[in-house]
Order: sequence, then C-alpha cells, then structure tokens
Amino acid sequence: MSSLRFKYEDLKRFCLDAFERFGFTKDESAIITDVLLLSDLYGIDSHGTQRLVRYHKGLKSGLIKADAKPETVFETPISEVIDAKEGMGQIVSYNAMKKAIQKAKEHGVGMITVKNSNHYGIAGYYAKMACDEGLIGISVTNTEAIMVPTFARKAMLGSNPIAVAMPADPYPFFFDASTSVVTRGKLELYKKLGKEMPDCWGIDKSGKVNTSAPEVLDCIASHQGGGILPLGGAYEKTGGHKGYGYGMLAEIFSSILSQGLTSDKTYVGGKALICHGFFAINPNLFGDPEAIKAHFSEFLQDLRNAPKAEGCDRIYTHGEKEIIAMNERLKNGIDININTVKEMKNCAIDVGLDIGEYLGQDAANA
Amino acid sequence: MSSLRFKYEDLKRFCLDAFERFGFTKDESAIITDVLLLSDLYGIDSHGTQRLVRYHKGLKSGLIKADAKPETVFETPISEVIDAKEGMGQIVSYNAMKKAIQKAKEHGVGMITVKNSNHYGIAGYYAKMACDEGLIGISVTNTEAIMVPTFARKAMLGSNPIAVAMPADPYPFFFDASTSVVTRGKLELYKKLGKEMPDCWGIDKSGKVNTSAPEVLDCIASHQGGGILPLGGAYEKTGGHKGYGYGMLAEIFSSILSQGLTSDKTYVGGKALICHGFFAINPNLFGDPEAIKAHFSEFLQDLRNAPKAEGCDRIYTHGEKEIIAMNERLKNGIDININTVKEMKNCAIDVGLDIGEYLGQDAANA
Repeated sequence: MSSLRFKYEDLKRFCLDAFERFGFTKDESAIITDVLLLSDLYGIDSHGTQRLVRYHKGLKSGLIKADAKPETVFETPISEVIDAKEGMGQIVSYNAMKKAIQKAKEHGVGMITVKNSNHYGIAGYYAKMACDEGLIGISVTNTEAIMVPTFARKAMLGSNPIAVAMPADPYPFFFDASTSVVTRGKLELYKKLGKEMPDCWGIDKSGKVNTSAPEVLDCIASHQGGGILPLGGAYEKTGGHKGYGYGMLAEIFSSILSQGLTSDKTYVGGKALICHGFFAINPNLFGDPEAIKAHFSEFLQDLRNAPKAEGCDRIYTHGEKEIIAMNERLKNGIDININTVKEMKNCAIDVGLDIGEYLGQDAANA
Repeated sequence: MSSLRFKYEDLKRFCLDAFERFGFTKDESAIITDVLLLSDLYGIDSHGTQRLVRYHKGLKSGLIKADAKPETVFETPISEVIDAKEGMGQIVSYNAMKKAIQKAKEHGVGMITVKNSNHYGIAGYYAKMACDEGLIGISVTNTEAIMVPTFARKAMLGSNPIAVAMPADPYPFFFDASTSVVTRGKLELYKKLGKEMPDCWGIDKSGKVNTSAPEVLDCIASHQGGGILPLGGAYEKTGGHKGYGYGMLAEIFSSILSQGLTSDKTYVGGKALICHGFFAINPNLFGDPEAIKAHFSEFLQDLRNAPKAEGCDRIYTHGEKEIIAMNERLKNGIDININTVKEMKNCAIDVGLDIGEYLGQDAANA
C-alpha cells in the first residue's frame, strides 16, 4: 500500500476549498475540515481525509443535505433534542456540543441528543471540544448495524463508539473507542494484508466464530447475517455480553433519548438517519475544578509510572498516543494512501479544483 | 460444593436481625438486607448473603463504622459530594441515590459522588433504585486494585463496575458489569473446579498471560504484581485498552470527582476508603417519558427477536437473566454454600442469635 505524504496545512487548505465547493459556507467548511484533520493528526486514518470522497458522494446523491436546517424538537435549560434533517453530521454535532458546553457553563450540565443525522467523524472530536473548555465531554453515536449481540447471528448494533475527554496535565484524558471489538476498517486492513483475524473479532452468517476477514466482510456487505463481535468476543466467558452492554449505552444516549432510529433501522435505502449524543459536565459541580484536575493528573501519572509488563517499555494513558501521533504528523506530515489520493484528485476535478495547487505534482499525477 | 437451600423470606428475617445485632437501626438493617438479597435473587451470589460474615468482621474490627455520620462536603442543586466517614457502603449509597433521585425529579439530573466508603454490594442495586422511579440510573464504584492496565504488570484499578438501568417493558434494562473481564470470585470458582482460565483473564507478576487461577490469585494476594485483565484481555489487538478505558470512567465518576482515593491507594492497612458515583437522569429532559420507554422497549424486543446463532435458542437483553433468576429463586429458594452457612452460624452465635430459628435445623447443624 504505497502512499503520499502531505503537510497538515496543505491538506487543510485543500479540504477547506473542497467542502466549500461541495456546497458549504466558509465557516461550515472549516468545521468539517477540522474534524477530519484532527482524526488524521491523531492517527485515526479511517476517519480522516480519506472520508472526503465518501462525503462528496453522499452530498452529490442527496443522501446528505448540505443545506439542511436542523431543528430543535425539545429543549430544557440543561437538555435538547435536535432533528438534523439529514444534514452533514459534523455541522449539527459541532453546534450541538457548542450548545451543550454553553448549558454546562450556565447550569452545570448540558445533554443533547440528535436524530436523523449522518456520519459525524471521530466521536472524540466533540468530547474534546468540551474538554478544551475545562469540562468533561462525552460523545456517542450509533451507526450502521455491524455488531452482532451475544448469541445472535445478525448485526443489530453499530460500532457505537463512546468517547470521553477530561482535562488533565500534561495532556487531557481522551478515550474514544468503538464498543465493537474493532471497526470495519480493521477488517479491511487484515484483508489487504492477508492476515488471519483473532477469534474474538467476527462471526459468519451462521453465528460461528470466523477468523477470515474477507468472509466476515462479505457477510456484512450481504446483510445475510454475521458481522463484528462486541468488545469481549463471542462468549459470556470472555465478556462479550459486556461489550454488547456498552453498545447499548451508546444506543440509549443517542437513538433512544432522541427517539430516532436505532442502529438496526439506519441506512435503509442509503440514508443514514443515525443519532448522536453530546454531554458536557462542569467539574465545578463537584468542587474546585483545578483541585480535581490536579487529583486526576496525579493518578494518570501514577498509571504511567506503574511497573511495566516484561517486554513493554511504556504504559499509556488514554489520549497519550494521539498526542504523540499529532506531534509527529505536524512535524513530518500525514501519509495518505495512493488510492485515496486518486479519489481525491478525481473529486477535485469534479468540483473544478486543481489538486496539484494544494498537494503538489505527485498528487496531480496520482 | 454442597449447599443448603433457604427461602428468601427466611434469609431476609435472619439478615434483618443480624444486622441490627451488628449495630444498625431497624431501617438501616432493612437497607443492607435488601441490597444483599437482591443480589442473591438476581443470581449474583458473590455479592449476596455470603458477604454478611465479611461485613461482620469489618464492623467488629472497626474498619467499617456502624455509627458513621456521613457529611456533605459540597453541594449544588444537581450535585453533591459526600464523605462517608468510613460508614457502611450500602447505607451511604442508598441515601446518596435517594438524594440523586430527588434532584433528578426536581431539576432533571442528580449527580452524587461519595468518598471514604466501604464495599456497597452490587452496583446495579442503586441504578435500579432510580429506574424504579422512572429515571435512568447509573452507579459506579472503585474497589481494591485488582485490574492491571494494558502493558503494566501491577494492579492499579479495581474491578470498577459500571451499572446502568432504564425503564422498559416488560422489564427494565439492567446492565451491571465489572470493567475487568471477570471479578476475583470467578477466579476462585475456577480454582475450586481445577479449571484452566481463558487466556484473556489474568497475568502473573511478570506481566505475562497466565491461565492458572491459583497462580493469579496468589499474585493478587501477595501484591507483588499480576492480577486480572481489563475486559478485552492483555492486548490492544483484542481491545484490552478499551476495558482499561471503561475502568478509568468508573474511576473518574467516583474517586476523581469526589477527590477521594483512587483504587491503587485504597485498602491500605485494611481500611477500604473507596469511592462511588450515583447518577439519576430524568428522561423528561428529552421528551415524553412514556414515548421514550415505548421506543426503547420496542428496540429491546427487536433484539430478543433477532436471528439466533447456531446452537443458541435465546438472545438476552441486559437484566433479563436477573429477572429469570429472581422468579426462579423466589419460588424455589436460594442455595447457599455449606461453608458460608457455617460461617453464618458462627456469626449468629457471636451476636446471640440462634440461626436454627430462622433457617432451620440443617443450618444450625452445619
């Protein structure tokens, strides 16, 4: 899998202009670009620039509506339910978390659910928004059903990530993980590499554990049963029912509390109509925020300082790897798969942009 | 492992009188008894009546203070931090969740953290309290450190359960699970049975995966390294860093937001000094509670109705197994291990009760 390396600033300039050409305002384009590029910087390649082409397709086909006007369908001083009206996930989500932050600053807590939305990028982006304001941020979403509940053989839940961020020194706690043991992107990677999957990742259409990435991916695509397992695998013995439970929590705090579509009913006829949840909690509800932050930072440092397992030289706290990746990528650039670059080039042509002006001759020749 | 079977009502009468003899008021004794016996009814034997003797020992030695007067150290209309003053975990926790429920009924949400407490029984009891009042209930606790973070070889986090309950028909959603892949009780069971553990359960003092229950239990007891793995096991590939992350969430919403002791610093010199978190969310923050409940109930039914894996005849939603166990045990009685009955008998003698009057001659002769 060859790739080209680009500077963060160059990718940003390209995305900003591309999303404007896709039909968004300058401000909206800046929001979407920031969500995508944080993902690239954090090393979560599956949710970064490589998604641009997929969003473009969705917008062109009308499955995602660039001009959607999300509506508040219910509101209290500390909560809100928003109908995204099939708009771009990043925009309704950014605005929802902004509102949750505002409520948490005024009243201690802000809890907002969203329905009828589209893919919103990395869940952690929105949790980080609250964290950057000194709050605890939580973001969840449901997705297309890919996760098979314990003892079932049909995917009923999405990858259903839960993200939580909280201020700490020298860097915040940032936890962003699917409640399925892995996401589809990991299976695609294993397929490309021809590697056998661990036996806690997937099951086939009969509900039996299957370690072949191509076979499980075929199952997902055919909607005839099979899919990815919850965190904890196929058995209660290994805790699969717990991962299934965490998936349910993501569902409760997105589709249930917005009365939107549950994962199993999304993406019918191509329309996502997925749901999100955004929660901001002010630590001043529990005392002096600086004292709480210091207490938390000390614990995180104790974790990093704990004795290492043989053969391991480092214990990470959540969010640390993302900071390391970001520093490295800001300095050395971001690698984009050559096939993705080709798609981006064609997409640029489609909207009248010359990708070479942004990303150089190698990209133009891709 | 032979056992004796008792009626729920008889065990209840015994516990009520025993806890009064241990130094609690009638009302307090009723709270503790209800927490223990719900655990027995729900089939979570490790946290039921068999704990009575351990509580008695803690009370006798002064490590748990029956006459503690918990103090509010911080409060807002929607939040509170309580210092349990080393009192009985069940009592401070029951009162904390009562208060959270009251706040949620008045203001939409109630969030209460507790520090300097003791073992509180099953986390789910308190989540269920809120659920019984039509609210979403969440309960978390930290515990003695038994869980080893990814890439470490020393236990730094507790079993750190997260419990969430939410109203639904025909029975509520009730999720109560340790964020460690299993709890110590499961290792003790495997030791008794002489069974080899799955390779995602434990590591030894060098940080290597170990499938011997006696060896990992020895590691835990010796505090020389080793312990139980997070949900997801020892590797990032199998999602161990996610279980470690959920353990962190339990820590944040108990010890961090109460500024109490983190798991790694609890149980020094025998004193637990652990922390809990209790959260009640009123679904009326998001619309009509009955409509939300109906929407949720439909999804739960869809999950139960989904196609089953080959060899499986039923898909459970969380809390269903507990209802099945409760119905069975209310009808047929509750089995208590014979060694536990012996301990209970001696404990009864110690406080001047005749166990035979409550649980019959077999118990008196145990």
